[in-house]
Amino acid sequence: MRKFFLFLFCMPLMAQAQVNQDSVTIKKMADEIMTNGKAYDLLRELTKKIGGRLAGSPQQQNAAIWGKRNMEAFNPDKVFMQPCKTPSWQRGGKDFAAIVGINGVATIQKLEVLALGNSMGSNGLLEAEVLAVANFNELEKRKDEVKGKIVYFNSEFDPTLIQTFGAYGASGIYRRSGASRAAKYGAVGIMIHSLSSAPDNAPHTGTMVYDETLPKIPAVALGPDDAKALYAQAKKGTVRVQMQTYGFFLPDADENNVVAELKGTEHPEEIITIGGHLDSWDVNEGAHDDGAGIVQTMEILRTMKALNYQPKHTIRFVLFANEENGGKGGAKYAELAKLNKEKHILALESDEGGFTPRSIAVSCSPSQLARFQTWTPLLKPYGTEVTAGGGGADIGPLTGYDKTVIMSSMIPDSQRYFDVHHAKTDVFENVNKRELLLGAVNIAAFIYLVDQRGVN
Amino acid sequence: MRKFFLFLFCMPLMAQAQVNQDSVTIKKMADEIMTNGKAYDLLRELTKKIGGRLAGSPQQQNAAIWGKRNMEAFNPDKVFMQPCKTPSWQRGGKDFAAIVGINGVATIQKLEVLALGNSMGSNGLLEAEVLAVANFNELEKRKDEVKGKIVYFNSEFDPTLIQTFGAYGASGIYRRSGASRAAKYGAVGIMIHSLSSAPDNAPHTGTMVYDETLPKIPAVALGPDDAKALYAQAKKGTVRVQMQTYGFFLPDADENNVVAELKGTEHPEEIITIGGHLDSWDVNEGAHDDGAGIVQTMEILRTMKALNYQPKHTIRFVLFANEENGGKGGAKYAELAKLNKEKHILALESDEGGFTPRSIAVSCSPSQLARFQTWTPLLKPYGTEVTAGGGGADIGPLTGYDKTVIMSSMIPDSQRYFDVHHAKTDVFENVNKRELLLGAVNIAAFIYLVDQRGVN
Repeated sequence: MRKFFLFLFCMPLMAQAQVNQDSVTIKKMADEIMTNGKAYDLLRELTKKIGGRLAGSPQQQNAAIWGKRNMEAFNPDKVFMQPCKTPSWQRGGKDFAAIVGINGVATIQKLEVLALGNSMGSNGLLEAEVLAVANFNELEKRKDEVKGKIVYFNSEFDPTLIQTFGAYGASGIYRRSGASRAAKYGAVGIMIHSLSSAPDNAPHTGTMVYDETLPKIPAVALGPDDAKALYAQAKKGTVRVQMQTYGFFLPDADENNVVAELKGTEHPEEIITIGGHLDSWDVNEGAHDDGAGIVQTMEILRTMKALNYQPKHTIRFVLFANEENGGKGGAKYAELAKLNKEKHILALESDEGGFTPRSIAVSCSPSQLARFQTWTPLLKPYGTEVTAGGGGADIGPLTGYDKTVIMSSMIPDSQRYFDVHHAKTDVFENVNKRELLLGAVNIAAFIYLVDQRGVN
Repeated sequence: MRKFFLFLFCMPLMAQAQVNQDSVTIKKMADEIMTNGKAYDLLRELTKKIGGRLAGSPQQQNAAIWGKRNMEAFNPDKVFMQPCKTPSWQRGGKDFAAIVGINGVATIQKLEVLALGNSMGSNGLLEAEVLAVANFNELEKRKDEVKGKIVYFNSEFDPTLIQTFGAYGASGIYRRSGASRAAKYGAVGIMIHSLSSAPDNAPHTGTMVYDETLPKIPAVALGPDDAKALYAQAKKGTVRVQMQTYGFFLPDADENNVVAELKGTEHPEEIITIGGHLDSWDVNEGAHDDGAGIVQTMEILRTMKALNYQPKHTIRFVLFANEENGGKGGAKYAELAKLNKEKHILALESDEGGFTPRSIAVSCSPSQLARFQTWTPLLKPYGTEVTAGGGGADIGPLTGYDKTVIMSSMIPDSQRYFDVHHAKTDVFENVNKRELLLGAVNIAAFIYLVDQRGVN
């Protein structure tokens, strides 16, 4: 009886002592990252010495070697490669588009343009009249007008959506499936408004997918200013445009996920994964997308080793090979996890840019979420809270073989991401050192808490 | 009795209806600002067509005229000037510093440098040995070594302080009072580590104050890289440096606060003030400091007029004349408020940059704060919450004559502010359009709620 009372009495004290200890450890990690963090220097190397690294490019090969070498230098228990096949889409040339006629009068007005990733080349110069539509509804209503035309989709962002990923989701369907939706009615090519929030004219590329049963017509994104001008003109009269693109595929390439591991001391068989993706589009340095997630992942490994942190669970630091135009890196990681009968308890992805962190989003049961949210006071001093709804393209496949794996993600401030996302402006100079490091701090803190306290 | 029950029954319904109505109006304001906002275009004009605008400069005169003309175009009930005298500090030339000797060996190593605002010129070339100290404690311990030396204060930011204003506060005392603290022991000049969080070598100026009873020795801020190198060298051996600065004062200048007013329909005698400061340092465009606060203030006026909002209280939109090196704009505003026996209920200042808004900070009684914090659910969709502790240099003087005026401020994310603050990098290109507009949205929402619901 006495023991029982002592137990009851001690529980809250022990819990409080644990909270205090966790608070101290998290502060140590934060101080280490903000004072000695290498993430910014690593990002400079990845972006400036290697550069853009589309799957199948020499740069992507070199990025994996660079990632392996640098993680080995941090001296984890092991570092290994996971070979995987990825698409090898080639842009093939300098994409071109121009307005060449307005209301029957010849003109030449060059447009800022990028072919969409995975799109097929135009096979020479294409010239046609534009059919400009606001959305798929209008396309369906005007399907009889489509044949022989180049369809323009006005996939402009809705600026009133405060979380910009909402606007990206709504407009993104035109990039992903606009070509086949238009080809179905006989269109010869499509143009979209770049998926951009920037007050500039830089075009934004990004992945698209053809319906294999329909003609694979060329597809481009226009710079925002040019897109608005074209749309305004096309609503008033007839506009003829030219476009020429060169996209094609080489045979699938041999790439690698790069994985570093700290072995768990209490539950070595239970795995926590942190990661980002090494590949980027070809037109930029992939600094925010996803150099940031890569170097944050490496920074957390560095910090845990620097502080001699020995995790209870096995922690994996994964640089995924191919997210942008195929998702083959994440698929391979999950395939091997299944093959090796691995037990994954939680995976966290950082792939929304290296901006000031706002929350750690977690997809799990309501009771698990409520428990994770009791950790918010430990994260709040570093700027985040625990919110619902995490996940990501690279970690997602893990749930395909085990639905209990908890998906989580770093949610940074979203205001600037789609200014640079997939555009030539996604360069090192547009990443802020403190914001980048602070992202690593918050991921490290959350992963530390998961490791110490488990997920249930 | 029946009436009483009806009253009790209706109360929560009425309160909920009010919340819903407020939510709708705030959404309208947000949509108007995010879709049609002019703040970014106004900022481009202020920074690119007018430029840096230190009090006493022609640019500052023109900025006031520009502010008046643009606010008149929004058609408020009135726009008026409040003439005030401001300091007219002149940099006077191109500031110079160099290392010219290390351990007795001659060398020439130019240093990136800016004289501190309000500091006096060196009256020709000054050359002396450096006494490098970590802080005032070390200065006091080594006071016998100071005579004839140039004292270097290592006022580097503490990178572990997540809120960067904390680091600015701790290091800022060396900029403000380092010169006289060193002059007291016979120093002939001082150098400080720029108050900077940037991974670059740009020096940051900013205001300083002399103790009038001591010699007014010249004072400069070194670029961060140069400062670190100098400090490392000086800890190992002797370092001789040269410096030359040219600062002086012209007679006080005639500047103006620019004030626009919407007259209250129910409580015209009760005034709510929103504002920022028109002046900036001479070495940059004053884009974040405080062009952002200026154009947010103007944007909220524009939006209220565009939506035909008729406030219950009188709302003032104030472009303060002089904050940086004298605070004369805010002092004049408070002086006239007292003279005219005005009743101010709340003032809000935006002077921490045009970054993503994180909170509206309010200095008031605990019960008032608790009440303001019930408004957080209405602000949260736009990114902010109500927190304790608002205020600012321009609105502060209002409390000098009436302690009941509630002080509040826009608190944006602080990670990038001290990268550019008072450095040549505070230019239009470093302001993000969505972040800037979102600041205006949150100020507008809070001010609308204050107007609708009052402060008690």
